[in-house]
Amino acid sequence: MTALITLTTDFGTRDSYVAELKGVLYSEGPPNLRVVDLSHELVPFDVHAAAWFVRAALPRFPPGSVHVVVIDPGVGSARRALVVQLPMMTLVGPDNGLFSYLYDGREVVYAIDVARLGTRTVSRTFHGRDLFAPVAAQLASGVSAASFGPRVETYVRMAGPLVEITGDVLHGRVLHVDHYGNLITNLSEATLRQFVGNEEARLGVDALLRVRIGQHVVDRLVDHYAQAERGELIALIGSSGLLEVAAREQSAAQKLGLEQGSTVSVERHG
Amino acid sequence: MTALITLTTDFGTRDSYVAELKGVLYSEGPPNLRVVDLSHELVPFDVHAAAWFVRAALPRFPPGSVHVVVIDPGVGSARRALVVQLPMMTLVGPDNGLFSYLYDGREVVYAIDVARLGTRTVSRTFHGRDLFAPVAAQLASGVSAASFGPRVETYVRMAGPLVEITGDVLHGRVLHVDHYGNLITNLSEATLRQFVGNEEARLGVDALLRVRIGQHVVDRLVDHYAQAERGELIALIGSSGLLEVAAREQSAAQKLGLEQGSTVSVERHG
Amino acid sequence: MTALITLTTDFGTRDSYVAELKGVLYSEGPPNLRVVDLSHELVPFDVHAAAWFVRAALPRFPPGSVHVVVIDPGVGSARRALVVQLPMMTLVGPDNGLFSYLYDGREVVYAIDVARLGTRTVSRTFHGRDLFAPVAAQLASGVSAASFGPRVETYVRMAGPLVEITGDVLHGRVLHVDHYGNLITNLSEATLRQFVGNEEARLGVDALLRVRIGQHVVDRLVDHYAQAERGELIALIGSSGLLEVAAREQSAAQKLGLEQGSTVSVERHG
Repeated sequence: MTALITLTTDFGTRDSYVAELKGVLYSEGPPNLRVVDLSHELVPFDVHAAAWFVRAALPRFPPGSVHVVVIDPGVGSARRALVVQLPMMTLVGPDNGLFSYLYDGREVVYAIDVARLGTRTVSRTFHGRDLFAPVAAQLASGVSAASFGPRVETYVRMAGPLVEITGDVLHGRVLHVDHYGNLITNLSEATLRQFVGNEEARLGVDALLRVRIGQHVVDRLVDHYAQAERGELIALIGSSGLLEVAAREQSAAQKLGLEQGSTVSVERHG
Repeated sequence: MTALITLTTDFGTRDSYVAELKGVLYSEGPPNLRVVDLSHELVPFDVHAAAWFVRAALPRFPPGSVHVVVIDPGVGSARRALVVQLPMMTLVGPDNGLFSYLYDGREVVYAIDVARLGTRTVSRTFHGRDLFAPVAAQLASGVSAASFGPRVETYVRMAGPLVEITGDVLHGRVLHVDHYGNLITNLSEATLRQFVGNEEARLGVDALLRVRIGQHVVDRLVDHYAQAERGELIALIGSSGLLEVAAREQSAAQKLGLEQGSTVSVERHG
Repeated sequence: MTALITLTTDFGTRDSYVAELKGVLYSEGPPNLRVVDLSHELVPFDVHAAAWFVRAALPRFPPGSVHVVVIDPGVGSARRALVVQLPMMTLVGPDNGLFSYLYDGREVVYAIDVARLGTRTVSRTFHGRDLFAPVAAQLASGVSAASFGPRVETYVRMAGPLVEITGDVLHGRVLHVDHYGNLITNLSEATLRQFVGNEEARLGVDALLRVRIGQHVVDRLVDHYAQAERGELIALIGSSGLLEVAAREQSAAQKLGLEQGSTVSVERHG
């Protein structure tokens, strides 16, 4: 079997941080190790956006993969370092809620005890290199999650993004602005179907929806970007099953002056 | 033999898109698979620039490599998805002309029939993850290109970039501005030698050339950047065999206020 | 044994340069080759910053790794191309001082003789692809460093960054601004302990230090970022053992309007 470790960080790619971490993985991991970059461009210190990223990406990897995730504003403080065992994957990272949206009640969570890493010096500012990488390298070599420290029953969990209904209006917000400037909301296709009261409805066809985002109104819910004119504002269910607002081949975020956290609401029309 | 899949996209590296695609490749590809990032920073939706990129890069890879290329403004529309078999490589991507400059008359082109991918759900907005990655994973496992759909005889081909001669002047344009700000034109070394009527000429020495680009004139054709003073404007034949205009250790694009598409012309002098 | 080649360049990720180089490595390297991206975002032409990067990163990799480093403003000129054999690694790159901080007196340096690469055409502008990659591929296949050219006794070495003491003040400068905007100086923990005259001192506790950087004063030397308030200016010993000035979860560089090369000084107080 091949050992696979993925890396998700906010380190950027201009400094030596990612390189140092990879050096430790290849030095201390098994000979057949493959290290896979997922992203090093997550928004610095934004744990919420990172939680959303790992929820979308990690379940796509083969069973048994080890995933290192380092968005860690509390590095060096008393925040714990975790190994999380799930049926299909092992997670390594700080205890700050990063893994919240992967928890399904079957997670078994261990707090890493630095003493068990031997005589290694652990810096106070770079746990990615000095703590998470050595642990991941050992996990990929077959060492069990339980061997790194005691099991813990309490650990940080973020509240899910709030979705509310007031009268005939469904309220949410922009979770994330992607590379293309698409505004991805926290309103899922399932939530929209519940809202229209018809699990079978073809959204935008059987159930016409009006989306308000910031000060703007989008009446058109399409199936895919190419149904719109270049630059036209549209709403659609994106590849993660979430409602998004887009402007074909342009940045909707820039066009509307909106960003992560902007409010969005949906109501029926027609 | 090792299976190798390369990735070229305009997805950027801040979102989970690249990660999701890699997850599918590692989950569905052969155990010895290596996935190689070529770039995820291609200009969004710019099929022409992407065609130029893949022409320069893909022929460098070992025979049998599978190349996934996703610059796909028409995703979800009626545009077809292709597998292209060439003697030395297999290409997977949308039918929008991306592969035009790799076609040499020996290409065998198949249109992917989604029904042959089994019960998989294919999203309308992310064919990279749901269509191209599964096909590439199977190709890397040894499944034949022909098994994904019918052979087609018509497919999108871009016209080559126009090169014209009027009187004693050769006309072209800027194909691409690279990371250093070098202005790379569509005038090849071979075209320049034909233009001067001497296949053996040492350009810039035996055949003195004057390059006009935008409103600027460059009289000096050098062999390499280090022959110029810092910031001096020079013309040279770059590493892809194309005429480029550069400013040593500075951005010629910024210095001249020029960009992709700017006109360039060449004439003899002296 | 697995062959491992790392890549560190200033090529950026928008152009086909990295891809072309990887294609050559996979085509000419051993079948079990793994190519590891360290960074392609080094500051173009900044040999000093690159020397600092490779010093931090390369020693972390397993013994026997081959490291290709291409920050090469002199490409095509008379500057030599080197293979450097160190006890734990082999380096490939231009002779411009890049490797200065890895030299420890045990380096054996060879100047690459292009004639030994056979009939290959070497472009005048892209030695990464045409010279360093083929050499690295052969090194990873087990070819000895000595087979690429004559051993040389003189090669470029950069002077170390200057550290000076005048009166009771220690003077240095900003080596590097990292992705988070932290200002990393050339003053090491060891230098600071020597300066306070106590090898055992707990800096910031037993020995209170005042840091002047640009026009600003920082009195607080902490252990890690999370000891500060959000945005508070702090000094600390970073993960490479160097004094840095940071602003928790903000960019100190932006906040203070400072950059690489800014002066820094340290004196005792309290």
